[in-house]
This record gives sequence, C-alpha cells and structure tokens, in this order.
Amino acid sequence: MIDAVVTESRRERRRVRGDEAGNAARRKPDYRTLRNPFLPQPVFSEDQVAAIHDTALRVLEELGIKVLLAEARELYRRAGAVVDEETQMVRIGRDIVTAALASAPKSIRAYAGDRSRDLVLETGTLSFLAGSGAPNVTNLDRGRRPGNLADFENLVRIVQSFDALHMMGPFIEAQDVDNRFRHYAVNRAQLTLSDKLPFVFARGAPQVEDCFEMLRLARGLSDDDFLSNVYCYTVINTNSPRMLDIPMAQGIIDFARAGQMSVITPFCLAGAMAPITVAGALTLQHAEALAGLALAQISRAGAPVVYGSFSSNVDMKSGAPAFGTPEHVKATLGSGQLARFIGLPWRSGGGSAANVSDAQAAHETQFSLWGTVLAGATMCIHAAGWLEGGLSVSFEKLVTDIEALQTIAELCAAVPGDADAIGFDAIAEVQPGGHFFAARHTMTRYRTAFYEPLVADLSNFGSWTEAGSRTATERANTVWKRTLAEFEPPASTAGRAEVLDAFIAKRTGQGGAEPVS
Amino acid sequence: MIDAVVTESRRERRRVRGDEAGNAARRKPDYRTLRNPFLPQPVFSEDQVAAIHDTALRVLEELGIKVLLAEARELYRRAGAVVDEETQMVRIGRDIVTAALASAPKSIRAYAGDRSRDLVLETGTLSFLAGSGAPNVTNLDRGRRPGNLADFENLVRIVQSFDALHMMGPFIEAQDVDNRFRHYAVNRAQLTLSDKLPFVFARGAPQVEDCFEMLRLARGLSDDDFLSNVYCYTVINTNSPRMLDIPMAQGIIDFARAGQMSVITPFCLAGAMAPITVAGALTLQHAEALAGLALAQISRAGAPVVYGSFSSNVDMKSGAPAFGTPEHVKATLGSGQLARFIGLPWRSGGGSAANVSDAQAAHETQFSLWGTVLAGATMCIHAAGWLEGGLSVSFEKLVTDIEALQTIAELCAAVPGDADAIGFDAIAEVQPGGHFFAARHTMTRYRTAFYEPLVADLSNFGSWTEAGSRTATERANTVWKRTLAEFEPPASTAGRAEVLDAFIAKRTGQGGAEPVS
Repeated sequence: MIDAVVTESRRERRRVRGDEAGNAARRKPDYRTLRNPFLPQPVFSEDQVAAIHDTALRVLEELGIKVLLAEARELYRRAGAVVDEETQMVRIGRDIVTAALASAPKSIRAYAGDRSRDLVLETGTLSFLAGSGAPNVTNLDRGRRPGNLADFENLVRIVQSFDALHMMGPFIEAQDVDNRFRHYAVNRAQLTLSDKLPFVFARGAPQVEDCFEMLRLARGLSDDDFLSNVYCYTVINTNSPRMLDIPMAQGIIDFARAGQMSVITPFCLAGAMAPITVAGALTLQHAEALAGLALAQISRAGAPVVYGSFSSNVDMKSGAPAFGTPEHVKATLGSGQLARFIGLPWRSGGGSAANVSDAQAAHETQFSLWGTVLAGATMCIHAAGWLEGGLSVSFEKLVTDIEALQTIAELCAAVPGDADAIGFDAIAEVQPGGHFFAARHTMTRYRTAFYEPLVADLSNFGSWTEAGSRTATERANTVWKRTLAEFEPPASTAGRAEVLDAFIAKRTGQGGAEPVS
Repeated sequence: MIDAVVTESRRERRRVRGDEAGNAARRKPDYRTLRNPFLPQPVFSEDQVAAIHDTALRVLEELGIKVLLAEARELYRRAGAVVDEETQMVRIGRDIVTAALASAPKSIRAYAGDRSRDLVLETGTLSFLAGSGAPNVTNLDRGRRPGNLADFENLVRIVQSFDALHMMGPFIEAQDVDNRFRHYAVNRAQLTLSDKLPFVFARGAPQVEDCFEMLRLARGLSDDDFLSNVYCYTVINTNSPRMLDIPMAQGIIDFARAGQMSVITPFCLAGAMAPITVAGALTLQHAEALAGLALAQISRAGAPVVYGSFSSNVDMKSGAPAFGTPEHVKATLGSGQLARFIGLPWRSGGGSAANVSDAQAAHETQFSLWGTVLAGATMCIHAAGWLEGGLSVSFEKLVTDIEALQTIAELCAAVPGDADAIGFDAIAEVQPGGHFFAARHTMTRYRTAFYEPLVADLSNFGSWTEAGSRTATERANTVWKRTLAEFEPPASTAGRAEVLDAFIAKRTGQGGAEPVS
C-alpha cells in the first residue's frame, strides 16, 4: 500500500475548532526583507568564469560597442576610450572597466516611501518585481487587450498589497494616455497608491527630469536630499548585439548624475541577438553590461548600478524568445557566477513564454524563479504575472505566481532544529497509531506553524467539486478582485496627490514631454 | 523600454529553413542515467542533524515501535530488541540500528529488462517515478473515475516511452480486477509492455512470491540469479506514528530474504501523524525508517534498502495532506541531510494536493521536485501526474510534469564553457544591431543546442489563437494519445506474454492469492 496512509489520515482528520483557537496571534511572516539562504549553484568552473570575463573585456577593447548618443561617446572618449565618430563605435579599454568596477557600490540602499519598504541591494539579498514592460494586459473578465491606465493603477494596487513583491515596475503600457503625458499618469499612480520603490522609464532627459521632480514633490525632498540617496530606479536595455541607443545611453548618464539606480540589462537571446551557446550569450551580456556600468561610473563615480542579466534562448523553429527553459536556467546560474566575480548586486529575469496562465506558464515561471534563487540574484524582474515572453501581464497569473514567491520567501526563513522543535516529548505523548492533532506540541504551534495559502485550495475532490470545481486561475480572479476591493493607499501617500496634480497640470499646460527615441 | 527588445527580436526572427538543416544529427539527450549536479541544500546545522538522529535512536530505545507481525517481533527479539508480546511493542537498541546501517549497501544496482535501463541507486544519482498508489485515474476525455486495468496498462505504455521516468510503479489501482488476481494483471502489464525496473506490492507473502515467480519467468532467471541481484522493488509505508503493520513487516522480511529492494518510507504528516514541526516530523520519520531498515538487515544482512522520506504538512483547517508547500520542501531538504548522515540511497516524495491540473498543481509539483533535487534524493516518487495528494493520477498532468522532469534532466548535463563555447569569433562576426541566426557558430549547433519542448508551445499569441487557443493540458491530451498510438513494446519483452499467461492461468485456476491485511 504505497503511501496509502493518505486515505487513513483523511479519515482521522479533525477540524481545529474556533473555540480552541482563542485569541492567539495570527501568523505574520516578514516577506519585506529577504536574505537568500540557498547555496549559489555554479555551472562553470572558476577558470571558465574568468575566461568569460576576460573575453568580454576583449570584446570591448578589440570590437567595441556602437553608441548612438554623442554625449555618451564624448564621455567615453574623455575617459580614454577609442571613439570612431563616423561608425559611432567605442572601444573601451580594460582599465576603464576596472576603474568602473572599483567605484561602483557593492551595496545599494534604496529609499522607498516608508522606511519599512527600503531595500538593500547587495550579494545575498533577494527581491522580486512583477512582470513589467508589457504592451498588453489580460484577465478572465475582459481577455487580452492593449494596456491602459486603469489597469496599470489596479496592478499598482495589487502589487502594493503583497510584501513578496518588493518594488513597483512598469507593469503594462498605459497606451490610452498620450505618450507626452503618460509618464505623469504612471508616476502619479506609483506615488499616490504605493510606498514601494518606484520605477522611472529612461525615455529621454525631459521625461526623466519630470519624474524626478514628481518624486521630490511626493516625498518632500530637497534637490540635495534627492542627489544623496536612491529614491527610484530604471532599467537600461542594451540593443544586443553591441549597441547602446540614445534614450538608454541618456538614461545611464541622467540616472548616474542624479544618484539614482540603473539596472543595466543586455537582453541576450542565445541564437538570435547573441551566440547560441550559454557561455557565448553570457560573454556578450557581460561585455554590454560592463560597457553600461562604465558609462555610469564615468558620468559619476559611485553611481548606483545593478548588473543585469536577462539571457535565455529562442525557439529555433520560430525565433520566438523562450523562458523557463533549461538554457534560461543555465544562463541565469552562469550570470550569478559573473555577478559574484565582479561583486555587484544584480538582477535576473523571470517569466514565461506561454500564451495563457496554464501548466506551461506555471512551470516556466517557476523554473526561471529557481534559476534566480539558485543563482543568488539580488532582484528578479518579471517574477510574477508575465505571459507571452513579456507581451502581456495577467492579473490572475500575477496572483498564482505571488503564491510561488511567498513559498520562496518562506524558504528564506530558518527551520528550527532545537530540542523543542525535535520534540521527543511530543512523540512520547502520542501512542502508536494515534495522532498529533491534540498534542500539546501541536496546540501551541498550529496557528503559526504552516504557510497559509493565498490561492491554493487544499480541500478534497468532493468539497472542491461542490464548491464549483474552480481552477487556481479562477480562484485567483476572486483574490485580485478582493484585493482591489479592500485596498487602501498607504498612509504615507496621504495628501500627495494634490501637490503632484498641480505639477502635472502645469506641465500638461506646457505640452508635456515627448519621449526621446 | 524595459526589456522591450523582445518585440524587436520577434521582428527580426527568421525561420531556420529545412533545406539548411540538411541531414545533421537530431538531438538525442540521455535522460536514462542522471547524476545530480546541484549542491545539497541544508536546513539544519550538523549538530542539529546529529541531534535528530540521536533522538530517533532514543525513540526506538525508550518508546519503541508497535509491530503487528509475530515473525517480525521474533526477528527483532533474536537480534536483541526488548519485545513486549502483550502490547506488541518492540524497543530497539542503538547497537541494532548501528549494525543495520553498517550492513545496508551504500550503492544498489537494480537490473531492469534491458541493461540500458539498469539503475544505480546511491548518493548523487537521481531517478524519477510517476505518481503512484492512486485509487483513481483522470483524463480530459472521461474525467475522474476509479482506477482500472486498461488505464494502468496505458500508463505503463506512457511511462515506458519517456526516459526521464526511470522505473515502473503502482500508478493506479486496477479496481476492476478482483484483488486475488490483480497482482497477476498488473505485473503482466509491467513485464510485457516495459523494460524498466518493475514494482511489486507487499500485500502478503503469497502475492509477493507469485510476483517474484513471474519476474523469474519473464526475465529467464534461475532462483540463484534472482537471489543475487535486485530485479524489482517495493515501497514499505510504516503506519505513523510508530507502527508497522502485518503486510508491511512481512514485505520487509520477504524482500530482504529474496535480495529485492525495499523503499522504507514513513509517511509523516506534520501536525497529524507526526509532530507539527519539521524537525519533529523528521525525527519520527527517521526513527520509523531506521526500525524498518533494521528489520531488513536482521532478515538478511546486506539486503538492499532505500531510506524513505515522505514528510509534509497538513492543512490545519481541514486536516488534508499538503504537498509542494514550504514545509514539504523544508522536510525534504532535512531528509537529505539525514540520508547523507547515514550514507544510504534515499527516496523523496513529489506531488500536489490540487484537484485538477492547473497552475496550483504545476507550482506544487515543481516545488516538491526542487525539494528533491536540492536535497539530493536518489529517487523521487510521485514526480509526475499526481493530483489530490495521491487520490488520482492524471494522464495530462503526467505529460506536463514529464516536461518539468526533462528540464531537470537537461540541467544535469554540463554546460560547455571552453573557448569555442565562449565564441569570441562569433561575437566578432556579427555587427552591432545584427543577429546570430546565420552565424557559423549558430549554424553548426542549432539542431542540438536547445531542449526541444514536449508540450510547451512557444508560438506567439496570434498563431496560438489561430491554432485553437489550446492550454498545455489540452495539448498534453494530444501528446499522450500520440504516445499510445505510436507505442511498441520493447524488444526484450517479445515472447514473454505466453510464459506469463501460462503461469497466470495455473494460479488463477488455483484461486489466486488473497492480499494480506
């Protein structure tokens, strides 16, 4: 009777009665500050890691990177790089990279809207960001459609409500707002509905400066305050292979000068924009990330930069990006080795290529999540809700993935192994064939012993069927609606809308700010 | 533009044409023999592991275990244990356990129907078994219903077809076959449709001897051949807490004497049949497993035994078993520490408590799978297809979970990190903003570079919608039907049905064999 004791346990099961529960404290796990207890898993030898790093330096020295922004080329040139203005190619010596790695901070403290939301980004800390950058949004009620402001605001509310998501992000494009004014609306939502670290798009200096000003207004910061600490972050994507475009280069410079955080992320899909091997894709990733890191440090030594990895493979049948594949996991593990080699905080990428929130989507998302955890990534972007390789964010998948993130967060907590936890007396108390439901050891712990599921349904098949045979995705629909119904903006945002609205009205009257491309 | 390069990559994507593909070799990954490259993840300190082991020895010495089979009590008594015949309690001294741990083999070679299917079970090897022991079966076509022989045979065919599943198992109960004859039908299916290591239920000596005889007939083994090597295995579940029932004790004795493999697995659900703490549940698990291991070694020194763990928690609201929870993962990781402490091969338990193959089911199954991988389990039972905490096996979930197992199998392979893989020349060949689709580095590798999905669909939303918007579960339905349509029994089983059928006819005429309970 292989594991048939299951059935027996069910017969014996017993509800813990409310009257026994008394007023004991409910379980209140801390998911706001996570340290990753998992051993970093290598895929390359130390020699191979050093060879990848060295080859990346050769790529920058001998082949160079094309930089479309004149100001950036000039900064590189002044730092000693060889610049060809005609081809816009910049060849960066290893001395420049070495200096950049020396001045980049190993630990970054990011200030949120509330001190309990502050983040420390360094080797060993762990944080999660929901799926971001998607043009589309989807949910069970209205299906898949272009992103819009109302849905963006709702995603901000949901993300704000779960501590296992540690910062805000550009979840979906608010395509119903003109792109001269979109950054006002998106930033306003982050600053009035959330006290988590906000994201600012690097779409040119005018928009970035608008967003910085909104942040100063919302947080009540002087210019000097703002310059001296990290209050927001952006993500910089290089155009792999070996190209840095105008808004991205400008973003690196503007964020570095303002002391704000850049997450510099090549997007190296093996076989498409990068070599087909994991080692090759990571070599290109490393070269491009180092080029961006160097530009930040040249712009302002000590600028807070996060090393970025988002390397995966493509489906060789269609050329479509793949996520949660073995190659994605391997690339993330290798990236962790490279990040530890240079000692900087770093981001990984989660996500799924599935078109709907199904078993494929869950498996892919969790594989990329474990890649993150075992690689020791400091922050994992697209950790929840991301479908279609980033072309949509699903409300329901956001919820089911938050359950996975909460599970990882639980695994970050220590497991008691003292004599009291071992519990010889408890074992002695229960006779052979008995049960522990009523043991003292159980009664003093049962309210807080186990993780309480957010959306998982542990009821038996009969009860589940009677309750409507609802899938996890259908239950997630209920969860996010309840979350929105119960949502209240955090206290620290009170009264901030007025000051922001006055600024937005003024800037709107002035015509807003076009994105730079 | 956070990660918006995705969109760009799609514009640039290009089909690798059939005519370029030529006749190059297809990808043929080896999933038959896996070694686990992941670093074992501890949850307890070394002192705590030693304390759990020591407390388990105290449980056996001071509290004892209730043994319902007189023959087993007599064996324990002769080995020096203190036996109370009135209460059936057996108190086992640590000298007996120490001797058992010394004589139990650290490495077990199991002989399958074909040498390429043989398994070596020892610290560092990794093998997977599909969900087993379920009373029910489910698929999209016919829904959930009691297990039957036809479905059992189809599950054997599917499991035989995927190398990432390494042995046969008692997937579902063939409830349509009288239980005096069921073991003939189930064993016949395993021995005529598969060349993987077969499973034999320990439901009393008469059935076990029938199954051993069928195995000798099918494999063409003499009695001496059979006694000298492992040709099958069983799973022994103790009745936690601290009880060993008649068929299980008999199974340990019969398998040990026949030199066949017992997987001795307490089923310790924290808060129900075991203490509510992970450390406490594992202490009870360890005590019960050691008691079983000792009985096997007393029966025959050197008997092949696998240390078993299947500890998880229960839902404290309903008492239902939970799987894939943080507590399940922690218990598995702790079990790995205990197994390494005693140095034996060991099994973990996968699975899911979900009622349907949805996102919850996938997440739970993968969490328990990573528990297995990071705990360094030698074999993982219930790794695919298990729903409802073991009350049903799903054909579709079996397929979607096999994809997860194949992903793990891929991660067991080394990642090339030599100069050729790093590929400086490939990076030099492609100009900034170009792509690697046509690079020589790509063209020589693209057929074999990446894992080819079994059921994952990587097409874009438009193509996926045009193709019918099918979920992974719906596509899995197609996959298992195609697998069955293409199935052919392995060559080594040819002609074996006749000899088995003659034996079965004889034994059926004699009335079969009742299960012992």
